[in-house]
Amino acid sequence: MERIALSDLRPDPEALLGRIAYLRLAFFEAASSVAGRATDLADREAVTGVARALLEQHGAVVAMLEARGLGSALAMHPYSAEIDRYGRRLGEAGWHESVLTLHLTTGLLDDFFAAFAAGMPSPEGPEVSRLLEADIGHDALVRILRAGIAADKRLASRLALWGRRLVGDTLLVARGALADARDEHGEPTTTDERRVEPVLNDLIAAHSRRMDALGLTA
Amino acid sequence: MERIALSDLRPDPEALLGRIAYLRLAFFEAASSVAGRATDLADREAVTGVARALLEQHGAVVAMLEARGLGSALAMHPYSAEIDRYGRRLGEAGWHESVLTLHLTTGLLDDFFAAFAAGMPSPEGPEVSRLLEADIGHDALVRILRAGIAADKRLASRLALWGRRLVGDTLLVARGALADARDEHGEPTTTDERRVEPVLNDLIAAHSRRMDALGLTA
Repeated sequence: MERIALSDLRPDPEALLGRIAYLRLAFFEAASSVAGRATDLADREAVTGVARALLEQHGAVVAMLEARGLGSALAMHPYSAEIDRYGRRLGEAGWHESVLTLHLTTGLLDDFFAAFAAGMPSPEGPEVSRLLEADIGHDALVRILRAGIAADKRLASRLALWGRRLVGDTLLVARGALADARDEHGEPTTTDERRVEPVLNDLIAAHSRRMDALGLTA
Repeated sequence: MERIALSDLRPDPEALLGRIAYLRLAFFEAASSVAGRATDLADREAVTGVARALLEQHGAVVAMLEARGLGSALAMHPYSAEIDRYGRRLGEAGWHESVLTLHLTTGLLDDFFAAFAAGMPSPEGPEVSRLLEADIGHDALVRILRAGIAADKRLASRLALWGRRLVGDTLLVARGALADARDEHGEPTTTDERRVEPVLNDLIAAHSRRMDALGLTA
């Protein structure tokens, strides 16, 4: 069986733009909340920089929706409950765990959505891909996490555990988005699970590299 | 006794820029948090717009600090505890109360700091004043509050009470900033309470007009 390429899936532009817009909004709010809980002002500014990048991306996608004559609230609405459930499943956590969540979940989902959006049969496709490939400030998050681990050896094992438990829920968000795929007649296509597996494995491999870079066992 | 003009007080630029930068950061975080608690997506987008404006203002003041060779974290640090206490004193509240807090506290303090910053003996003075006079999106907040009041008559009396109790704590933040005033030798000046009173009365009058515009008794 041939493995699927995400960019062959032709996601419905309005669905995917609405989904990405909401996900950016939710990530932005998560980042501002993490920033607000920082005890160190320089860390707070650094995480605020990530929030700013996410908010700019949200604004750019909202502008694309508006250029199509769509209100962002209506376009995002179908995806809000699912993404809110995801946020709740990730749960409350210590501050460094929340920084790790931000780093890993945006990392995994930006990889996924950048590839998926590339197949949008509309001019926004490459634009959205470039947008999601742009760095939101992961270096700053990695620096904070490394400093935390260096200062408290027990943090490493807590973060390793935390990083592992994020993967399942985050992959569910990616899988959920596959529902936006359409065939040549614009009808929803059901994607064969076995063909999707290699794509998800790639996302997991990139996740493991992010964990490795922090000295954490994935 | 001659009434004082805020713009005659010559605030220390680095102190005032640090204080305003932190206040913008705290307001930004408050706005994102209010946005995240909205039940209606259009309201959420509207409040996110206010958060965006506050974050841009924060970034502009941070850029001024950096142009002076000052790190924003160090410059903001002396003011963070006082402003955090203010945020805690405002306390937890229902969603509409939080929207009102955002509308009234930024309204009152932006009026104050725009006038106070105008007296900075440095090129940033007029720039900061213009920045703080720019609209952060109060119309959107007023629209949300009016819709809430129209839908629930009891909300008006709750909000009237809430609006009144914000004033005292918010004026304390303005009073606290007067400590940044310097004389011609760069020494801190103690400002005569009786001369400051009319300035605070102007702020209260503007606050009452904001309450009136919502149909609330100030």
